[in-house]
Amino acid sequence: QLEAYKMTSRPRGVCLILNNHNFSKAREAVPEPKNMRDRHGTDVDAAALRRVFSKLQFTIAEHRDLTAEEIRKTVNIYQREDHKGKDCFVCCILSHGKRGIIYGVDGQEVPIQELTTSFTGQNCHSLAGKPKVFFVQACQGDACQKGVTIETDSGERDSSVETNARFQLDCIPAEADFLLGMATLQDYVSYRSPRQGTWYIQALCQHLEYSCPRGEDILTILTAVNREVSRKSCKPNAEKQMPQPSFTLRKKLIFPVN
Amino acid sequence: QLEAYKMTSRPRGVCLILNNHNFSKAREAVPEPKNMRDRHGTDVDAAALRRVFSKLQFTIAEHRDLTAEEIRKTVNIYQREDHKGKDCFVCCILSHGKRGIIYGVDGQEVPIQELTTSFTGQNCHSLAGKPKVFFVQACQGDACQKGVTIETDSGERDSSVETNARFQLDCIPAEADFLLGMATLQDYVSYRSPRQGTWYIQALCQHLEYSCPRGEDILTILTAVNREVSRKSCKPNAEKQMPQPSFTLRKKLIFPVN
Repeated sequence: QLEAYKMTSRPRGVCLILNNHNFSKAREAVPEPKNMRDRHGTDVDAAALRRVFSKLQFTIAEHRDLTAEEIRKTVNIYQREDHKGKDCFVCCILSHGKRGIIYGVDGQEVPIQELTTSFTGQNCHSLAGKPKVFFVQACQGDACQKGVTIETDSGERDSSVETNARFQLDCIPAEADFLLGMATLQDYVSYRSPRQGTWYIQALCQHLEYSCPRGEDILTILTAVNREVSRKSCKPNAEKQMPQPSFTLRKKLIFPVN
Repeated sequence: QLEAYKMTSRPRGVCLILNNHNFSKAREAVPEPKNMRDRHGTDVDAAALRRVFSKLQFTIAEHRDLTAEEIRKTVNIYQREDHKGKDCFVCCILSHGKRGIIYGVDGQEVPIQELTTSFTGQNCHSLAGKPKVFFVQACQGDACQKGVTIETDSGERDSSVETNARFQLDCIPAEADFLLGMATLQDYVSYRSPRQGTWYIQALCQHLEYSCPRGEDILTILTAVNREVSRKSCKPNAEKQMPQPSFTLRKKLIFPVN
């Protein structure tokens, strides 16, 4: 029987949420203004993440509307923090992005691998051997300008859904104990509803909430999230979103509720 | 409880093994000869794969020393085959490679995504909804020229180990039901012993052989493979190899022995 990561500390660790909503700085950027919409609906995602990871005994640290430089500084704070008494580190990133990149609200880029690499054993010794989990929901700058009409599962139409990005997956360091869950997408689009949040984060939170108390491990949960998200289709193009987790975990990762 | 893929057909399906050993064509290539060594030890890997996947009720189809064009033609044969009565498709690739690429024995390139995309629902209708599993062990052309001395777990030294490549992971289509297991590597190297085969394929086969009869699912098995491979270290540089599976599976994938 494969061993599980220790997950008993109270709190389990930090759940860092980087939640970028307001991209007016990017639109006003000099010399090169970026045509990035505000990410309406992202607060619905952030609220769901806060609720679920609180239940899972994490300390929530949410930061809103950070520039690229502020993202780096914020990540550095948690990199330098002493995670000695903690069993895990979770980081959720909600922003615009493109392949392997997330954007600060000023439209400047931060490579995802730079963020994940901040938490390798060498760079963050107190997390060595502990699971480091990243969930990334980031929509592509260019594609976000298009408004795409989707039909929701309930048959309702939501005309203000925006399109998201596909990422390359070479975003975690070649080191053990990382898990990256990221919305990877056919035709480079995924979906965010201003009222209901993103398909990916909403499915993730629902499945964590349902399955963690039942003792399911994270890879099983992410398989169920794949199943749920892949069912949703976008008319009229019938585009499909497909998350594609990748991992260097060496043990079962289970988030017990108590 | 998450549903499992049906895995009861006899045979379960094809296990295609593309086994490239002799790269003399690459070394003689005109206009541009490639300095690629023969991949001594690859037959040890191929033999282990044949044995394990036979036990798991797959039909083995091994092809040796294929050029890039022959790889494409061979894959096309299995793409066009009717997999109607089969529950699964497995493809194991043993060759030289570089990021996202494998080499034919003539030193010509084949993108891994081209191979995986051959088996999407659209391109291979009879595998739609069925799990499509790719295991890739491919070592980097340039790096393979270095002989690196490794110390094995048993404390033996093997002076003729060759270094392998790190790949980007954006190699499977954004479509459900794919699993890619690939040796991803810190410092762009992995290891193949002429006598014992590669760390990755050998660990994979051992864990499949041990855990499939016990009903473990493939993601749990690949987590154990991560654990095993990450333990091995290479002196004097203490480089570590780290596989990094990625998946769009929507159900549990279990290979029952009977």
